[in-house]
Amino acid sequence: MSDPITALAAAGLAPVTDPDVLAAHSQDHAGLVPPGAALALVRARATEDVSAVLRIVSEYGVPVVPQGARTGLAGAATAVDGAVLLDLSGMDRILSIDPVDRLAVCQPGVLNAAVSAAAAEHGLRYSPDPGSWQISTVGGNIATAAGGMCCVKYGTTPEYVLGLEVVLASGEVMRCGRRTAKGVAGYDLVRLFCGSEGTLGVVTEATLKLSPIPAQRLTLAAVFATTADAGRAVTAIMASGAQPSLLELIDNTHLRALEDLRPMGLPTEAAALLLVCADADPAAELAAIEGLCEAAGATEVYRATDAAEADALLQSRRDAYHAMEKLGTVLVDDVAVPRARLAEALDGVQAAAERHGVLIGVIAHAGDGNLHPNIIVHPEDPASLAAGKAAFDEILAMALAMGGTITGEHGVGLLKRDWLERELDPVNLAVQRRLKHALDPLGILNPGKVIAH
Amino acid sequence: MSDPITALAAAGLAPVTDPDVLAAHSQDHAGLVPPGAALALVRARATEDVSAVLRIVSEYGVPVVPQGARTGLAGAATAVDGAVLLDLSGMDRILSIDPVDRLAVCQPGVLNAAVSAAAAEHGLRYSPDPGSWQISTVGGNIATAAGGMCCVKYGTTPEYVLGLEVVLASGEVMRCGRRTAKGVAGYDLVRLFCGSEGTLGVVTEATLKLSPIPAQRLTLAAVFATTADAGRAVTAIMASGAQPSLLELIDNTHLRALEDLRPMGLPTEAAALLLVCADADPAAELAAIEGLCEAAGATEVYRATDAAEADALLQSRRDAYHAMEKLGTVLVDDVAVPRARLAEALDGVQAAAERHGVLIGVIAHAGDGNLHPNIIVHPEDPASLAAGKAAFDEILAMALAMGGTITGEHGVGLLKRDWLERELDPVNLAVQRRLKHALDPLGILNPGKVIAH
Repeated sequence: MSDPITALAAAGLAPVTDPDVLAAHSQDHAGLVPPGAALALVRARATEDVSAVLRIVSEYGVPVVPQGARTGLAGAATAVDGAVLLDLSGMDRILSIDPVDRLAVCQPGVLNAAVSAAAAEHGLRYSPDPGSWQISTVGGNIATAAGGMCCVKYGTTPEYVLGLEVVLASGEVMRCGRRTAKGVAGYDLVRLFCGSEGTLGVVTEATLKLSPIPAQRLTLAAVFATTADAGRAVTAIMASGAQPSLLELIDNTHLRALEDLRPMGLPTEAAALLLVCADADPAAELAAIEGLCEAAGATEVYRATDAAEADALLQSRRDAYHAMEKLGTVLVDDVAVPRARLAEALDGVQAAAERHGVLIGVIAHAGDGNLHPNIIVHPEDPASLAAGKAAFDEILAMALAMGGTITGEHGVGLLKRDWLERELDPVNLAVQRRLKHALDPLGILNPGKVIAH
Repeated sequence: MSDPITALAAAGLAPVTDPDVLAAHSQDHAGLVPPGAALALVRARATEDVSAVLRIVSEYGVPVVPQGARTGLAGAATAVDGAVLLDLSGMDRILSIDPVDRLAVCQPGVLNAAVSAAAAEHGLRYSPDPGSWQISTVGGNIATAAGGMCCVKYGTTPEYVLGLEVVLASGEVMRCGRRTAKGVAGYDLVRLFCGSEGTLGVVTEATLKLSPIPAQRLTLAAVFATTADAGRAVTAIMASGAQPSLLELIDNTHLRALEDLRPMGLPTEAAALLLVCADADPAAELAAIEGLCEAAGATEVYRATDAAEADALLQSRRDAYHAMEKLGTVLVDDVAVPRARLAEALDGVQAAAERHGVLIGVIAHAGDGNLHPNIIVHPEDPASLAAGKAAFDEILAMALAMGGTITGEHGVGLLKRDWLERELDPVNLAVQRRLKHALDPLGILNPGKVIAH
């Protein structure tokens, strides 16, 4: 056969070439990353489909872009020119739940929320909780090593991935990892695929670690008049030996945007609101944290009196991004800095906002030192876009200067590929390239993402 | 210069070639793995020394075997013919402790116990606790991805390694990972080096995650008349949503050996003793676990009345291996099976013992399904050695047949290299080899360990 589309069709893979469909599947939530022109879309239904697609694209030297729900924020799922888009969202079955070994086996297109719902029937949960948990897939979470609000106590997605089935660039199918709680047989391939954004292989099945649902959880909110006070509270909490199960910060810009979205009595004059949950011995834990917040200068500390009030507070944090969307197009940044430098980073973001004349609000996984500066731009105005991008870059540079990282949890994708070379040393970059070449010698797997050739 | 020893000496690395010194440094605790004849020993004092050694061995095509305290149990630190032994135990400085970011930066030769002691001054601990924690090094723990008793709640060594400085085969020095709580910039090289047994690079510095010391911990012991009852208790505990911070099993053979070593009133008629700790809301947690043990048929459940009694119980678990050493040479096995199959695995080990006429006691990280069958052999008697090795192999085959792994936490080294090919599928093995080749094209880094060429 003379062309890849004919070959895909002959293999029964029903390639879609309708330009409207391709356009609709060519971007993820990194809306400002320009997509390439895709060649075709294939909707995989089984591992065999993925294997067949990869054999064919290898044969024709055509790039392939694996996609889940395309909720990523760094452009890892963005189309590249001439690519076959490989949609895995239809591989959406949970294959088994084992309550004794506390694991779930599922296909990559299963939604994060669906795993949690299935686990809950056994008193278990799937801990990783990216902001997109209701709409993002397990495969996408693995590909981006997704974080979330749970991480301050419970860690990120890769810590919950025990085993994988992966289709390699050649179309060969491999299993790695294990079903047991522990295992060290050979190199840790599972962790290598986690966060590799589809550039090393395509995940077609995952064995996930489940955890008991904490018996109780309590929530408090603390109001601060200055970012310095809020930062001091976070430092004091983390230095105290406390283990909050959530420690989030909402800045003044977001508080006002949220209150505009839906009035709920948020303190719109505050510099920052901290939300803190505890779930081990929560009454005692929150009593200690409350004292630390007051000592750091909180103007008000209040505990949610019931689960409904706690949920409303946490929902405000989850709605923060949507509240900002009312103000323009949001360019989402994602940096992590040492925890002790949180206040300094918050002030640095505002300085960048003022310098470039753009509006930037920050929500932060404060306990992890992980900030999401949400930069409002108006793409139809080139000056606004340029100013937003300049602020974006300045924030990345600030994070690196603080000993932090250009991406705490969203990944590199296309959005930050050039910045990876500023974070990693040349020897490290060379190793990254050698690994890419070892697993994808033809360079067909999501080319251009994570690392440049 | 015409030979590597002259080159090492000229570089100021003071190679030692005294045959007695080389012999003393040629084995780790896998005593039955025969060592090769080393060429020289170099004691590294700094990263520059490691870099210089690797440049020289690369130039001369000579193998290098990185070594810490040589307490490993799989032969990863065993000399190979013609190798330079690279002793990192002198690089033993803790460089910094940061209580807010909860991390320690240290050299690879620092003892695990020394990190914990330094962290304790800040109310923190270094969680990973392999049995060797008082005598093994951080570098060795990282190289073997060491486990321990904490894992059932707190995970294994790799989960506590945030960043590394690594010297590559070429002598180039690389940093990977981060100092921040989260970060996803590029492929996860840190996890690739964890557990790679010095076959991909040599770790010269590590940034480790510290954790708060739990405020309180309570301990109980439960006595079982049959392994089936003990296994049922473990299954019930783990299916209940309980999160014990330790869940260990000592079998009858070990109970008797321990009582012979030092009488302390252990139940020498019992089939198994379970030790359980809890550290979140421990009184309530242990009450629930006590009930589950009784329901599973425990003949006796008692709680340690004070810390001294709890420590004595845990010390008996830690002494189990030494107690067995009084009975002969111990061939230590290490398999993990799905938790629900613990009792079946225990019975399978005893069946293998009877079939081959050898004594095997089992201690187990029961909550992880990770068994250590300690096989007593008398190496001076070829028949005893052959019987022990046959039982050893049978136990590995059993673990694989149960959906488990040939190594839960000790690693592959030389001891189980041939077995790796039975656990991993051919595609996975080919990927492992490609990664090895990508990072060590000349094959000089600890050759023959983990994977065969």
